[in-house]
Amino acid sequence: MENLSLIGQQMSQLTGVRAIMKDIIETLRSGENASWIDLSAGNPVILPEVEQLWREQAQKIIDSPDFGPIIARYGSSQGYEPMIEAIVSFFNQRYNLSLGSENVLITPGSQSIYFFAANSFAGPMAAGGIKKVLLPLSPDYTGYGGVALTPDSVWAVKPFIEKTSAHRFKYRPDFSQLTFDESIGCIIFSRPSNPTGNVLTDEEVQKIADLAAVYDIPVLVDSAYAPPFPALNYVPMEPNFSPNVLHCLSLSKAGLPGERLGVVIGDAKYINILQSFQTNACVHSSRFGQAIAAPTIRSGALAEIAQDVISPHYGEKFKVITSAFFRYCPDSVPWYLHETEGGIFAWLWLENLPIQDVELYQLLKKSGVIVVPGSSFFPGLREDWKHKHECVRISLTATPKELEEGVRRIAQVITQVYEDSTG
Amino acid sequence: MENLSLIGQQMSQLTGVRAIMKDIIETLRSGENASWIDLSAGNPVILPEVEQLWREQAQKIIDSPDFGPIIARYGSSQGYEPMIEAIVSFFNQRYNLSLGSENVLITPGSQSIYFFAANSFAGPMAAGGIKKVLLPLSPDYTGYGGVALTPDSVWAVKPFIEKTSAHRFKYRPDFSQLTFDESIGCIIFSRPSNPTGNVLTDEEVQKIADLAAVYDIPVLVDSAYAPPFPALNYVPMEPNFSPNVLHCLSLSKAGLPGERLGVVIGDAKYINILQSFQTNACVHSSRFGQAIAAPTIRSGALAEIAQDVISPHYGEKFKVITSAFFRYCPDSVPWYLHETEGGIFAWLWLENLPIQDVELYQLLKKSGVIVVPGSSFFPGLREDWKHKHECVRISLTATPKELEEGVRRIAQVITQVYEDSTG
Repeated sequence: MENLSLIGQQMSQLTGVRAIMKDIIETLRSGENASWIDLSAGNPVILPEVEQLWREQAQKIIDSPDFGPIIARYGSSQGYEPMIEAIVSFFNQRYNLSLGSENVLITPGSQSIYFFAANSFAGPMAAGGIKKVLLPLSPDYTGYGGVALTPDSVWAVKPFIEKTSAHRFKYRPDFSQLTFDESIGCIIFSRPSNPTGNVLTDEEVQKIADLAAVYDIPVLVDSAYAPPFPALNYVPMEPNFSPNVLHCLSLSKAGLPGERLGVVIGDAKYINILQSFQTNACVHSSRFGQAIAAPTIRSGALAEIAQDVISPHYGEKFKVITSAFFRYCPDSVPWYLHETEGGIFAWLWLENLPIQDVELYQLLKKSGVIVVPGSSFFPGLREDWKHKHECVRISLTATPKELEEGVRRIAQVITQVYEDSTG
Repeated sequence: MENLSLIGQQMSQLTGVRAIMKDIIETLRSGENASWIDLSAGNPVILPEVEQLWREQAQKIIDSPDFGPIIARYGSSQGYEPMIEAIVSFFNQRYNLSLGSENVLITPGSQSIYFFAANSFAGPMAAGGIKKVLLPLSPDYTGYGGVALTPDSVWAVKPFIEKTSAHRFKYRPDFSQLTFDESIGCIIFSRPSNPTGNVLTDEEVQKIADLAAVYDIPVLVDSAYAPPFPALNYVPMEPNFSPNVLHCLSLSKAGLPGERLGVVIGDAKYINILQSFQTNACVHSSRFGQAIAAPTIRSGALAEIAQDVISPHYGEKFKVITSAFFRYCPDSVPWYLHETEGGIFAWLWLENLPIQDVELYQLLKKSGVIVVPGSSFFPGLREDWKHKHECVRISLTATPKELEEGVRRIAQVITQVYEDSTG
């Protein structure tokens, strides 16, 4: 359509992984290969115990007199009160905090937290100039590429690559390249990381928070995979509740992606800003999902099922995929799997890959395996960096058997690719 | 908070009725007058038949194998497929249209439709200048004042005031003041109107759509109170499906405000733009509400309960309040009730009111009645116009007894106000 405003032009673009999703969906729908091994999915596995928990909670709400008021009343733009109370009470107890309700905001999914924040704290300033949304460790969540209404306000910084052992590596923030000053409006990163499975260490997070605090820069820590729920961390990690940190939760990986539930915990001065934006943009989040989640958060049942069911499920998959890579990938191929510290994805780096990641994606399709090309996951990174085109993301939502077979085919294809280039 | 971006400054302001809501909430909470008659509420009445419909639907979903996938899967950013199909099928049948799924988008409440549209179609342009969001008939919904990210992009135009009979009046669009040209990005109005109960005639809507079509300006018709559901119209009205009209529904007045369900029906070229914005801002709408609504829309059950239960409920209230005004308000006072053509509010105009609407609000509070000062409902109207300070909005969500008593007290207070000024 012509005649869009600048913002309309910006927001009608689908960035990152969304741009390739169309091809993936069409591929999966096409009948040509009925036995696709889909290692692209971001949709979490429906675990029977988790589904049962939500079904029981939903039944309780329907049977209660609260059902009418929950669905048939507008609510506070801050969120459904019992949900806010549950977050306050659980987090205070678990982490020995002194949160009040003014420190919590419920949003329609955590993506909208980043959208409200990226445009309230960053973007064009009254005094002129544009403040940046800084992504301190690239690659990171592809959705961050779409949250800013102003083109070029999202900026990412190249990491260090540390080879940690044979065929394993880990990204590290490169503090020598990270500038903290008035040009930064806010900072966002996922921890554990989608797509890489990296977990920034407690010390790295504290250092970022401290350096940002000097300029009163809010730091949004996307904790969609973090403890206490869904607890998809496989190394120890502590949340950070520094005064300038906004701790952002999602209930999507705890089994409620369809209900769009995001939670921000932080200083009331930030919460108020985000809440007003939400009021103007969409009034408030839907309440049924909040109503079924609240009692399970307050009682600790959600943290428990995360620890006992959700976390082991993906932990087991990480073991399967890791051992499959070591079994099928020859030592002669310079393949490196990111340390599997958390999340629901494996991240494969193929050093000096002779072709582009998107070409590899096409080759893998021919062998019946769908992954996501890694170059989708560097939003805001402007530098030309060949590493961007040497990675693929592999979802752990497939069955162990599919993962095993998928990796076998990936190994075959990449071995051939490297052989062809030297032959 | 300092250091907000321009957008942050804009979106952290609460405009219109939201600015006065704080005072209203504090007043209602204060114990000083336990017998408040609250005629300010925008929250619809929970009607037992409607609540029962939603409870039955919710139970069906919980008992079905669809429950897991509904809550535990991400969905398409366009909406939950059965909901889209239900809208397509029902509207095609009812209005003899040929909609396809590409003509429908589900959003987290209808406010977000206006937010996405106001910023995609209007605001700063690449070629320079700012396109306006035009509100062709002021007063209109207070929330339109908050949807634009760019200050000063919402513009409203003064209407004609037509005195229709003794103590009754109706607003009419003043086409002599309405300019349709490249400076307009989109047009929004509510029909029936919140706050006035006005229904733009079929001819007026067609004229606006035709004049806008010349410049390919999308016209968003906020049909939150319109037929087929919730059918809160008390004069005949037909929806308009011109190619440049975006017909916008809400399920809030059909009993699901807590679930935040908005629907846009229109040309795919507009739908695509709004859908991309939604994807970037919040991925998609929550699905449980869509799942319980879809079958009732498809079967016609929702339209039926709207016609048989919801519409008569407020229709009856309109009768109560109208007759109360004629009973209690002396002829000597120049009071005018807007024609009660639809919606859930009565709109009172006090010609040449000797005090400001906000002062009247304070006086009414002293007599135990809470209304909303009318000046909250002229978003985008920049002209100094004393009429803006001569109106109040009265909610029909109170009981008939409260409405009767509320109007008795309002009549007393305003009679005194006019007497004092001439005394």
